[in-house]
Amino acid sequence: MYLAEHTWEELGDYFAEHSLALVPTGSTEQHGPHLPEATDHLIAEAYAREAAERTGFLCTPTVNVGVSPHHRQFHGTMWVDAPVFRDYMESLARNLTYHGVDRIVFVNAHGGNIQHLREVGRRLRDAGDAYAVEWMWDESIPDLVNDLFVQNGPHGGPKETAMIQYLRPELVREDRLEAARDGGVASVEDAGTVIHGSRTFYDAIDNTGNGVLGDQTDATAEKGEELFEAATDQLVQLCEWLDAQDREDLMAKPHV
Amino acid sequence: MYLAEHTWEELGDYFAEHSLALVPTGSTEQHGPHLPEATDHLIAEAYAREAAERTGFLCTPTVNVGVSPHHRQFHGTMWVDAPVFRDYMESLARNLTYHGVDRIVFVNAHGGNIQHLREVGRRLRDAGDAYAVEWMWDESIPDLVNDLFVQNGPHGGPKETAMIQYLRPELVREDRLEAARDGGVASVEDAGTVIHGSRTFYDAIDNTGNGVLGDQTDATAEKGEELFEAATDQLVQLCEWLDAQDREDLMAKPHV
Amino acid sequence: MYLAEHTWEELGDYFAEHSLALVPTGSTEQHGPHLPEATDHLIAEAYAREAAERTGFLCTPTVNVGVSPHHRQFHGTMWVDAPVFRDYMESLARNLTYHGVDRIVFVNAHGGNIQHLREVGRRLRDAGDAYAVEWMWDESIPDLVNDLFVQNGPHGGPKETAMIQYLRPELVREDRLEAARDGGVASVEDAGTVIHGSRTFYDAIDNTGNGVLGDQTDATAEKGEELFEAATDQLVQLCEWLDAQDREDLMAKPHV
Amino acid sequence: MYLAEHTWEELGDYFAEHSLALVPTGSTEQHGPHLPEATDHLIAEAYAREAAERTGFLCTPTVNVGVSPHHRQFHGTMWVDAPVFRDYMESLARNLTYHGVDRIVFVNAHGGNIQHLREVGRRLRDAGDAYAVEWMWDESIPDLVNDLFVQNGPHGGPKETAMIQYLRPELVREDRLEAARDGGVASVEDAGTVIHGSRTFYDAIDNTGNGVLGDQTDATAEKGEELFEAATDQLVQLCEWLDAQDREDLMAKPHV
Amino acid sequence: MYLAEHTWEELGDYFAEHSLALVPTGSTEQHGPHLPEATDHLIAEAYAREAAERTGFLCTPTVNVGVSPHHRQFHGTMWVDAPVFRDYMESLARNLTYHGVDRIVFVNAHGGNIQHLREVGRRLRDAGDAYAVEWMWDESIPDLVNDLFVQNGPHGGPKETAMIQYLRPELVREDRLEAARDGGVASVEDAGTVIHGSRTFYDAIDNTGNGVLGDQTDATAEKGEELFEAATDQLVQLCEWLDAQDREDLMAKPHV
Amino acid sequence: MYLAEHTWEELGDYFAEHSLALVPTGSTEQHGPHLPEATDHLIAEAYAREAAERTGFLCTPTVNVGVSPHHRQFHGTMWVDAPVFRDYMESLARNLTYHGVDRIVFVNAHGGNIQHLREVGRRLRDAGDAYAVEWMWDESIPDLVNDLFVQNGPHGGPKETAMIQYLRPELVREDRLEAARDGGVASVEDAGTVIHGSRTFYDAIDNTGNGVLGDQTDATAEKGEELFEAATDQLVQLCEWLDAQDREDLMAKPHV
Repeated sequence: MYLAEHTWEELGDYFAEHSLALVPTGSTEQHGPHLPEATDHLIAEAYAREAAERTGFLCTPTVNVGVSPHHRQFHGTMWVDAPVFRDYMESLARNLTYHGVDRIVFVNAHGGNIQHLREVGRRLRDAGDAYAVEWMWDESIPDLVNDLFVQNGPHGGPKETAMIQYLRPELVREDRLEAARDGGVASVEDAGTVIHGSRTFYDAIDNTGNGVLGDQTDATAEKGEELFEAATDQLVQLCEWLDAQDREDLMAKPHV
Repeated sequence: MYLAEHTWEELGDYFAEHSLALVPTGSTEQHGPHLPEATDHLIAEAYAREAAERTGFLCTPTVNVGVSPHHRQFHGTMWVDAPVFRDYMESLARNLTYHGVDRIVFVNAHGGNIQHLREVGRRLRDAGDAYAVEWMWDESIPDLVNDLFVQNGPHGGPKETAMIQYLRPELVREDRLEAARDGGVASVEDAGTVIHGSRTFYDAIDNTGNGVLGDQTDATAEKGEELFEAATDQLVQLCEWLDAQDREDLMAKPHV
Repeated sequence: MYLAEHTWEELGDYFAEHSLALVPTGSTEQHGPHLPEATDHLIAEAYAREAAERTGFLCTPTVNVGVSPHHRQFHGTMWVDAPVFRDYMESLARNLTYHGVDRIVFVNAHGGNIQHLREVGRRLRDAGDAYAVEWMWDESIPDLVNDLFVQNGPHGGPKETAMIQYLRPELVREDRLEAARDGGVASVEDAGTVIHGSRTFYDAIDNTGNGVLGDQTDATAEKGEELFEAATDQLVQLCEWLDAQDREDLMAKPHV
Repeated sequence: MYLAEHTWEELGDYFAEHSLALVPTGSTEQHGPHLPEATDHLIAEAYAREAAERTGFLCTPTVNVGVSPHHRQFHGTMWVDAPVFRDYMESLARNLTYHGVDRIVFVNAHGGNIQHLREVGRRLRDAGDAYAVEWMWDESIPDLVNDLFVQNGPHGGPKETAMIQYLRPELVREDRLEAARDGGVASVEDAGTVIHGSRTFYDAIDNTGNGVLGDQTDATAEKGEELFEAATDQLVQLCEWLDAQDREDLMAKPHV
Repeated sequence: MYLAEHTWEELGDYFAEHSLALVPTGSTEQHGPHLPEATDHLIAEAYAREAAERTGFLCTPTVNVGVSPHHRQFHGTMWVDAPVFRDYMESLARNLTYHGVDRIVFVNAHGGNIQHLREVGRRLRDAGDAYAVEWMWDESIPDLVNDLFVQNGPHGGPKETAMIQYLRPELVREDRLEAARDGGVASVEDAGTVIHGSRTFYDAIDNTGNGVLGDQTDATAEKGEELFEAATDQLVQLCEWLDAQDREDLMAKPHV
Repeated sequence: MYLAEHTWEELGDYFAEHSLALVPTGSTEQHGPHLPEATDHLIAEAYAREAAERTGFLCTPTVNVGVSPHHRQFHGTMWVDAPVFRDYMESLARNLTYHGVDRIVFVNAHGGNIQHLREVGRRLRDAGDAYAVEWMWDESIPDLVNDLFVQNGPHGGPKETAMIQYLRPELVREDRLEAARDGGVASVEDAGTVIHGSRTFYDAIDNTGNGVLGDQTDATAEKGEELFEAATDQLVQLCEWLDAQDREDLMAKPHV
């Protein structure tokens, strides 16, 4: 059920029965010469909407801009500063509780948001207001991701390429896949920026000249579909598990 | 040109030539028994995308959740607190300047955002970072709005109804138009909550039982189209005017 | 009853019986070549003190400096930034509740403060701490203002001029009234700065060369007295209405 | 020269010649059974206005409410929280620099404001924006204060009583002077709340039952006048000294 | 009992019986040519650990960096800005209450921290969360300090010198004591920076060329020991007094 | 060179030559039934002081309390909230730049601090103020850690146990090693709290009953020494690498 397309009366029926919401969070940032800047928010939205469709749980509109200062050297990357993002997500989530929501899944497709969504989740839980978890699609199916790609790449690599090939094929510049591979690096390790145990990089450009990693030519729409089906299945199960918990079991444990 | 669907290389071409961006801002909030909660962000996005299409200027993704605490008593209304919204919009806008943007149109369709976007615009301008203006579709065509509707209603009324009938007809509950009219009030004045010159209301529910105002049965998709064409034309002209200004003429004037 | 001139013992008697306070809020900012920068805070204080005198309700000292960055290009304009003003007013108002105050009238004479006082009022009400309304003298008597002046002007115009001619005639530079009229503009509309529906101005100087609008030669002390009596009467009635309400009726309504 | 009573044109003449401003800061708080809650802001305003009159330097309107949470148990005490006060004073002071002010005297009559005005002064100076000093009337004439009164009392005692007897005699409840003395304590030391070197009190009520200290019956209007003349003379000299300094000598010294 | 050297199980035994904690707060800042920058935090830690040892109460690790911007012109001075220090101490203290702590002694050896610790103490007490007092070693034994030294000096003077000679003699540059005395000033009064009642200085360097005051050659380790024993005794008694109070007697008194 | 034990004159010599500082950051938090709560700050301090000794670079005092809310259910855990910690570290680091420091190594031994130190590092670098990296001892020698222990455990496990056995053997409760192992879990994976790809835990107690993970009986002081030597060597090399870089190469790269 997609919140934005319903009236308040219809939503009243949902809240009378349920207290779970999926909140898609992505980013708008460079994804190399071959993928659109929408990549992360398209993926987050696709998973959240699909899982909501399959389960009947509520999905909210997508937060399209996240914490992406590390991609700012590449044209068009949008971002909000980290403290602002946290406060925005906290306010958005806390206000949902006004309608009775007490468990939230941040359906996330941008690595740069993870720690901030976790911090927001802690604030909500420690305050006893709500229980929110962050879910990142590729972390739910690590084995499949590893099986499908030789070099899966953490940003703009074949796994994200395959996802957009499947979800929005018209947005992939297929003729730039080789350029994507050749102008970037295979992995952060290859960039040689972890020095004596310290990550000395802060920006993507410190590691990769064109903003991406991995071998994009390894991607296909079929692999994208396989990923999507497998991870959606995980998300559906997560929602069902969450829905089945007692509220008190989700909240912070007391002092020993 | 829609930022999110382009690669950073393609966007580099845009920024080499232009410094203007349209940023759609709406809300996700109750719009009575007949309209979806997406109403405001759908309208904002439609105008911004259309004007970008016609002019070639850049349009960013939409900020879907705004300042709507005054609708919170109705199921599903989402909002972020006002200070958080301001900081989010300021950060988002200021970071755009990193790519050379120095003039922004907040294409807005939610009255509750206006003063906050103006405050953000002041911050950006007083700091000398960018010049941003707020544009609200119906304020650009006041005569037409008055001509088309007997009682146009400021929230969830016939003008917004007509817009969604035109843009997304499948989302209008046509069988609830009469209920919308009969369960609300015609105007804020009719609610009688301005007492001895003071607005004594803070929430929509203080004025209207079902969250909306005006006579929704007066709306048609044809009127919606007429509104859309007329206001889009205004927005296109605003962009062209803004683009033609010298940067220094847009910035704050010096002390007398 | 003026709080500042009483001892804590005497005030204890007031709080034992009443829970209403009037808080005058103005500004210190340019008002053209003919009026003192005190204009707004003098007016606010005059109304609040008079209404307190007539009703017996409590009036606090005046907040003399408000949100006036839009007048800063003119010598001597004082202001505090908007977030700071809101926090100051919120803290001041919330702390009043420690003595039992639960309803407050911000007696305001500066348009630039309105939205901020409304935002503060929302914070106090949503938190369940107090109910505060903003009251602006000229908004309580719109018909009279229109009747008395051909071109009443929103800032430094004849209505404010008449008020100071009545309240503090020695502070009006009568020999500068024509200069005030001739060096400014008649109205914001005349300035031509609303472009395709967007307010493109941020500062007074964007609209008017000498900082004021309207025809100041239309003002007289007699008109000032008429305004003062009429608006004071409105304020007195507002206080009495507010005093008569049950606290619970003033607070935010519950979720539908 | 009192800023609030002048027009922007007249103030332009001042700023063309001078860069000094006096900003009176007081409080509105209980001052025992005999003095009005206005005591501190009346005193601050009187000194600042008088020194401005005698020297020709600019005096701004008074900040009437300061940091007085320690008096809150007594009816009517108004206050803003310390961080809010600091931000308000900083914003007010910093914005004055827009007109060319680079040296400010906070003419203060409330002990609870001192450290906060000092902190604001540091912020302004460390940022290189302005040089502001805090001046407290009784600290400029310690010997005279000690000579005039056996037990001068830090709050609501004879020195403040004498000041109001001189400045606003109609506001002193002369028949409550003995009650003031008998219901309070002579000094903080007498309250016995400094325990093993630690100040264990936070509020005035921890030390004194009626909110005041010292022997109020020792006060007269004549003593008040003597104090006023002597301290005004100090303030006048401070302004002249400050005016004579080079800006660079007032600003923070460089690293050794 | 030193918190940091115990396991959580052992600490559980403490919290089952007690609710008091000592929190040492110092600074890392220049102390002239003869003393290490650690001076203040070494002293604070020594007192707190010793009192904890003698009484069995809990001592936490030391906060080594405090509010020392006024010493920044001298190499190596570390500091955090005042608002940050307050928030850090408040968060640290409030979180201690999670384990049942409701009374805290800030064992402080840096004058620049005092007002900030007091402000934090007010926040905690006004919120009803905990009762915290600031204790500064030399303020607990003013007579002894005066007896031992002709010119005791408020910063880097003989009293602090004697303390380090006793606690950590290897850290005192004995051959620089005369230089310390000769390159500084005897007292703030001697610096002549209190002008017409106003403190016109903000930084130590405004008063003293080498950062210190007083006559350091007057210090000996024996005097240091005498100070340490006397002040420790005061601190021990303070802890015992605090421990013996009822919680409600420590908290803020109600409104009269 | 340990900053705290030197005078400002001596430190002036250092800053004349160098611009690098090591800042140890740890925590004070439960480490199971066998280790002291000081564990993390002892380890951080030991590494930082040793590397400073071997290289001659400057080491500051240790920040003893970090971001540990996830251990709060266990007695004695101290923490500051995450936004407060970030602001404290940022202020501390930024102020160091006043003396010429432009490169900082946060020598860290608490996993919970990592992301926050990285965020602070970004702020400093993006502002162009300084270049700071986070270094965590065990991340510099992953292979050795894996070789030495079958189950190394991320918190309170054998690697931390071995470190304290080596650094401060008297603080290890050797008779509780088996209890530590048996009352906890071997790894986060074993706790089963990563559900369908989502980390559903927020606190240590969600995963482990006694607060620790891994097999503590596998630890010895000899292994601790081996770890210490190997990781110190890495830190020494990191400092030397950092010192050899041009400042401009450390700062953020420009826009493509």
